[in-house]
Amino acid sequence: MSDGQALLVQKYGGSSLATAERIRAAARRVARTASSGRPVIVVVSAMGDTTDNLIELACQVTSRPDNREMDLLLSTGETVSATLMAMALHDLQQPAVSLTGAQAGIRSTRVFSSARITDIHPERISTELRHGKVVIVTGFQGVTEDQDITTLGRGGSDTTAVALACALDAERCEIYTDVEGIYTADPRVVPNARKVSEIGYEEMLELAQLGARVMHPRAVELGELYDMPILVASSFSDVAGTLIHRYGDLQMPMEIRKNVRGIAHDTDVARITLVRVPDRPGVAAAIFEPLAQANISVDTIAQSSGADGTTDLSFTISRGSLERAVEITESVSPKIGADSIDTADDLAKVSIVGTGMQSAPGYAARMFGALARAGININIISTSDIRITCVVPRARAEDAVRILHQAFELDRED
Amino acid sequence: MSDGQALLVQKYGGSSLATAERIRAAARRVARTASSGRPVIVVVSAMGDTTDNLIELACQVTSRPDNREMDLLLSTGETVSATLMAMALHDLQQPAVSLTGAQAGIRSTRVFSSARITDIHPERISTELRHGKVVIVTGFQGVTEDQDITTLGRGGSDTTAVALACALDAERCEIYTDVEGIYTADPRVVPNARKVSEIGYEEMLELAQLGARVMHPRAVELGELYDMPILVASSFSDVAGTLIHRYGDLQMPMEIRKNVRGIAHDTDVARITLVRVPDRPGVAAAIFEPLAQANISVDTIAQSSGADGTTDLSFTISRGSLERAVEITESVSPKIGADSIDTADDLAKVSIVGTGMQSAPGYAARMFGALARAGININIISTSDIRITCVVPRARAEDAVRILHQAFELDRED
Repeated sequence: MSDGQALLVQKYGGSSLATAERIRAAARRVARTASSGRPVIVVVSAMGDTTDNLIELACQVTSRPDNREMDLLLSTGETVSATLMAMALHDLQQPAVSLTGAQAGIRSTRVFSSARITDIHPERISTELRHGKVVIVTGFQGVTEDQDITTLGRGGSDTTAVALACALDAERCEIYTDVEGIYTADPRVVPNARKVSEIGYEEMLELAQLGARVMHPRAVELGELYDMPILVASSFSDVAGTLIHRYGDLQMPMEIRKNVRGIAHDTDVARITLVRVPDRPGVAAAIFEPLAQANISVDTIAQSSGADGTTDLSFTISRGSLERAVEITESVSPKIGADSIDTADDLAKVSIVGTGMQSAPGYAARMFGALARAGININIISTSDIRITCVVPRARAEDAVRILHQAFELDRED
Repeated sequence: MSDGQALLVQKYGGSSLATAERIRAAARRVARTASSGRPVIVVVSAMGDTTDNLIELACQVTSRPDNREMDLLLSTGETVSATLMAMALHDLQQPAVSLTGAQAGIRSTRVFSSARITDIHPERISTELRHGKVVIVTGFQGVTEDQDITTLGRGGSDTTAVALACALDAERCEIYTDVEGIYTADPRVVPNARKVSEIGYEEMLELAQLGARVMHPRAVELGELYDMPILVASSFSDVAGTLIHRYGDLQMPMEIRKNVRGIAHDTDVARITLVRVPDRPGVAAAIFEPLAQANISVDTIAQSSGADGTTDLSFTISRGSLERAVEITESVSPKIGADSIDTADDLAKVSIVGTGMQSAPGYAARMFGALARAGININIISTSDIRITCVVPRARAEDAVRILHQAFELDRED
């Protein structure tokens, strides 16, 4: 780019742009970065509650808004922020230009409300960068081959930022938000939770999927795929954030590194158990295919075989899906011969996450022991390479997070 | 189009779309027209005060908003209305699709904030119409060759509607607004002012230019150029509006038709007079060239030569331009040798308009006589083929309108 410095992509979320004053503050940060001649792309979300307000407006007009129209409607939110950001930069004597998703060449599938980016045609962006301008791109949106505007669904603006960073070979993608980075646990639950200075993609993915709502897993996955370092930091302070990058690139001293990186929790958990199902092939498919067809996202699945040729099959879903999921389960239950169906909607998931756990035994035992000593009953257990999750009573979820945070000494510096 | 019926273009202004309920009401009118299978294009303005609110937001960010960014910002207003109109039509089971200016192929010059339409590429519109959809197009905006969004400036949405009607060979362009049509005078001033059922383009142009703010002259001019009939009607009632069309197409009985069609007035008038200017070539240019360069719109110009080789040169401008215009006039005054400069900012224009006046003498005398009998002093007189304008004291402007409305018997049916 202009003088050989590496490109930076900075993304600002809705809360960082909620007022004219916040937009001006974000613009000052952008201008500081760009003033050295460094090429910068800024990706913006819609201001504050704009998206919710537009949805509300649509619902005043019709109870069943069409997805294509809704996408075009919502896309205006990011366009407003992008133009205001450009004006704020001009006010700081920083040349800048705003581009819509279509103008920026962000092509997507024609799946309105949850489109996927197919490719990026960055000619216009490159031209503007060459002219020394900060290029502001509307997040969350793309354009189909026939010029219809799409939105990218949840995590869309983060995804736009990471995708642009990858397509334009940026040095780094910076996500500015209203938290200072990734914590060892939710600071509202664990007051001495510690911000980590770096984390691997996989660990971040597990945390994101487990309720740490800082970044959507989709954008992290894309970063991992293209090996694009992502910095998560606060737009309201200059405190260093958390760098998400390849595990092998982590800077911390190898032998000192803690193997558990964080405790995640999610309180939106309901459970369905099919009791005493005959243990034969095809049972799982008979249940989970109709649930998938109904667009119900099944989370943890656990099955424990008994000695009598029957098994208890449990799975978790979000609480909002429980009613519908029970209907579906009840309709298939006779076919598979389950004794009965048991449900619970007062549960939570608590997880320990860390890449290092793979090669060091004993983490599960330590987790279960800590919960047992606190009298917290474990409902379901599920594990991955870098995660152990326990489903526990929701009333004890926060206790569980605090107990595990202490048990794995996460309040201490690495 | 679909079944051979002629295309109709309907335009809804901001007050007709100010709330979700009003959008639904406008949609009902559109659906009624389209239900017979008639192809319909709907052009929408931004909802209510949206444009003002966006300008306000920009001004909170910077005191000097860039025109390109401002245009992209403002274009979101019409996009919001267009998508909501599409949703409201869907809710009535009427297939519909909204298109931005860019999607609708409305190409414009690259003069941000006051672009001119250069041509229309209506392929997408035609395709959607063929599919039986009402096509909603955002008014007031276009797109440059390099895909930048422009706005068309004052009267932009009306111009979009008329331009689309011309490009797609519509039968008629209907402008729905918050008045019921064109009146013989402002009904707030003359309670027995009458709505006219039809009016010629030229007459409408004079009325529009003289302060009858129903339609911008620009859209009327375009209609005249392409001989496109324009109906102005209320979106809040089913009362028949006023049809603007070619003078030769007027339906009224030829011999009964009144030659004066309406009285226009404008109270935003200031005057500058250069007193006793030596009467020699180049004087007018010396004054009006620098005013034009300062973007000051000069309205009526009147010069009366005296017997002593000097002349008094008067011209009118809007009150907001007076201060700046006086500065400029004072700076050129010594060069042209004027004795002094006289100004007034308490004036108004009152005009009688009618195509028939050309061929029938005596209208000027009747106008001056009526004003004289009421003791209303005439400051400046200016005439065109179909208009006579008197500049009078602002305090007497409304009296003058009422007196002239009566003098020309405009309260009586044609």
